[in-house]
Amino acid sequence: LYSYDATSFQQIPDVVVMPRSEEEVVEAIQFARQYGLSVTPRGAGTGMSGGAIASTGAMIISSEKMNRILRIDVERRVALVEPGVLTGDLQEKVLEKGLFYPPDPSSYLVSTMGGNVAEGAGGLRCAKYGVTKNYVIGLRVATADGKIIGTGTLDSEYHGHIAHGRGVESRAASHNDYFSPDLTPLFVGSEGTLGYITQIMVRLIDPPETARAMVAFFPTASQAAEAVTAILTKPLMPSVLEFLDRMTLTAITAQVSLPVPEHAEAMLLAEVDGNADTVAGDLTSVIDVCQTHGGFGIEEASEPKQRDHLWELRRSVSPSLTTLATGKINEDVCVPRGELIHLVEWCQALSDETGLMIPVYGHAADGNLHVNVMYDADDRSQAKLAYNTVERILQQALDLGGTLSGEHGIGRTKRPYLHLQFSPEALELFRRIKHIWDPNRLFNPDILYPSPEELALAK
Amino acid sequence: LYSYDATSFQQIPDVVVMPRSEEEVVEAIQFARQYGLSVTPRGAGTGMSGGAIASTGAMIISSEKMNRILRIDVERRVALVEPGVLTGDLQEKVLEKGLFYPPDPSSYLVSTMGGNVAEGAGGLRCAKYGVTKNYVIGLRVATADGKIIGTGTLDSEYHGHIAHGRGVESRAASHNDYFSPDLTPLFVGSEGTLGYITQIMVRLIDPPETARAMVAFFPTASQAAEAVTAILTKPLMPSVLEFLDRMTLTAITAQVSLPVPEHAEAMLLAEVDGNADTVAGDLTSVIDVCQTHGGFGIEEASEPKQRDHLWELRRSVSPSLTTLATGKINEDVCVPRGELIHLVEWCQALSDETGLMIPVYGHAADGNLHVNVMYDADDRSQAKLAYNTVERILQQALDLGGTLSGEHGIGRTKRPYLHLQFSPEALELFRRIKHIWDPNRLFNPDILYPSPEELALAK
Repeated sequence: LYSYDATSFQQIPDVVVMPRSEEEVVEAIQFARQYGLSVTPRGAGTGMSGGAIASTGAMIISSEKMNRILRIDVERRVALVEPGVLTGDLQEKVLEKGLFYPPDPSSYLVSTMGGNVAEGAGGLRCAKYGVTKNYVIGLRVATADGKIIGTGTLDSEYHGHIAHGRGVESRAASHNDYFSPDLTPLFVGSEGTLGYITQIMVRLIDPPETARAMVAFFPTASQAAEAVTAILTKPLMPSVLEFLDRMTLTAITAQVSLPVPEHAEAMLLAEVDGNADTVAGDLTSVIDVCQTHGGFGIEEASEPKQRDHLWELRRSVSPSLTTLATGKINEDVCVPRGELIHLVEWCQALSDETGLMIPVYGHAADGNLHVNVMYDADDRSQAKLAYNTVERILQQALDLGGTLSGEHGIGRTKRPYLHLQFSPEALELFRRIKHIWDPNRLFNPDILYPSPEELALAK
Repeated sequence: LYSYDATSFQQIPDVVVMPRSEEEVVEAIQFARQYGLSVTPRGAGTGMSGGAIASTGAMIISSEKMNRILRIDVERRVALVEPGVLTGDLQEKVLEKGLFYPPDPSSYLVSTMGGNVAEGAGGLRCAKYGVTKNYVIGLRVATADGKIIGTGTLDSEYHGHIAHGRGVESRAASHNDYFSPDLTPLFVGSEGTLGYITQIMVRLIDPPETARAMVAFFPTASQAAEAVTAILTKPLMPSVLEFLDRMTLTAITAQVSLPVPEHAEAMLLAEVDGNADTVAGDLTSVIDVCQTHGGFGIEEASEPKQRDHLWELRRSVSPSLTTLATGKINEDVCVPRGELIHLVEWCQALSDETGLMIPVYGHAADGNLHVNVMYDADDRSQAKLAYNTVERILQQALDLGGTLSGEHGIGRTKRPYLHLQFSPEALELFRRIKHIWDPNRLFNPDILYPSPEELALAK
């Protein structure tokens, strides 16, 4: 159960620990050091880059028993949670109090807040609302030397400050609770390499008054990509704007009911939200643009139930692709939005050239595409071809001015390619940052930060 | 000219260098190292915490000749600038292309982008739109060892990546151009201690369709503070919400024409912006709340000209205070918004107790108050009392769950108090981060990061 995540990596850990408190986390870390084990923090194991997979000789510290929402403060619009709280649970609980926590990775119903923070998770709504990084304002972290460090709004909590007067549970600066100097941004997206997160404070915002969605089909993937660019230059920022290509549609329709018109080579799913006065007009604008770019079979989904059906559909994509082939490598490259069309067309040509199925879908408004290379897992030569193909996709995204990862993290899967994106100087600084926190590489030694060998390769 | 900023610190530098290019910045750094000088980066010298004041035996590198807007990319909604570009110039130029760069420190017409990034500047609009940190997505930095490091979207620019295909000017990830791992957040607010910023990429957003403002007076400062809390829990986020107390009003009216009603002990200045359909209703809500809390003499300012007059007024506050006394210490503490009223009342009592004028004004929606302690600069015992009083104000802000600084930075002025806010563990990590970039403390050795002596004090 603790040996795998959503990648194809697998490693049975030597020890699994399920602490119930910060003190028990510290004890577990001290135990690991004493017995020469490395430490891998683990949430729900939904990660797409191998961050929760143990190294050889490792202890997994699972957050499953630290799953309390410690506080929802309506006046300050913040929530304080333990790392094992499910993202969807937090969203539900804050919505009951009239507030909104936007980040929504597809796995939000089962993924944990600790995992979301560690991976810097994104989601469908992130083009408009920003990613996990934009909401985390304070952390408490157990470090490799068995200390607890508070960052951002949580720095004061257990500090001498309390000695000066009444207890202060957390610190507020400006509306966004940002102040300098702050160590928080170093931890968000650090993939369990710098310490074990024991508490997370996030800021909350007002939920949108209302929302409307639509689905449109296109005769070619290129036209759908053009429509995306046109929508975003209106200016109009949908809360969701998802692209799905033909192969992705085929995989979904094999699993769930979705009437896909003939000749549909791509689909766009869009949602606009906000003020009731403006939402209807915004949806009309989106539909107009889709029609201008050849969109057809357009259907509106104004009722919450219809919308929920669309998002369930979208969230079923990644699992449903596994029906296409036994092997699947899911890369979440990003490109500047104007280059979407080039990446989509290039992937189609690559599929023709290699004979591999390469379904493409994703958060179009972010330029964040999930490019999946499907292969027969029992066929070694095809597996090799698939991995070579993935490397070409990563390089192509970089050549288009994009990045290796949009929201899945670097982890194990993209670590060998870090030097393609980052300069040797930047990689050396990453190594030094790791060294500050964790000089003996106790935490996730094979994840994210380059090893000395990889640094040598980059030079 | 290069010896002072907006604090009372003064130090004539040994050398002032005005490079015109990145290459000249690197040469200047190498020269400083060769001759044993420290390096102080300097923008327009408008800083409020002494970050641009040289140490003994220092070279100032001024950004005044590196003031080009290198690119405004409408499709990607980003701008690339050199550090000496004035914030107001950038805002004007992007607005001409239909885009918006929100951060607006009061000095925006003369302050530089490099200075804004180094100090993590805020401004009037930041409660709604966020601070400088929320807009910087890539940097190029000349480091102490004479190298150029790219971060975030600018990491690729001069890197081997160009060898793989066509040149990529900058890298895009998601809408907000955030991706991990990213060194950018370490630099924003680093106050010139980690290197010299040579290029800055910021993201741009859509400007609000329209805006409306109003001014209201209150019989007591407490009622004005209560109105602030009530407005923010509507929920309603004005683009500007400024508080000014009686003493501040007195100072302004000595300088500019502002009809202040008798019995007015405080003033609120509010602006709402956004969609034309909603702005009028939002302003009415703000006015209703003000009236409920005793507001009177309320005037709307719907025309751009009237609004501009209000903001000029607000921006004249800090300079006009200098007419009250020859000495002025301006602290920008933050408190949770619910504590505003307590800080305001406490400062009034402190003024009564010490006999010092303590005008209070600031960004109420952020909980970011500018508490000014005025004194006779020629009277040593009063100066000493003033500095003791400032220390009490900082401690009170911390006791209320606030922070030492909201937007002015730590610099020289608040460095002695860092240990009041941060734990010894956090301070030690700050020291190590400084050590990574600048092991010999070449850059701004007396700014922000604690010295070994200060660390000892914190323990």
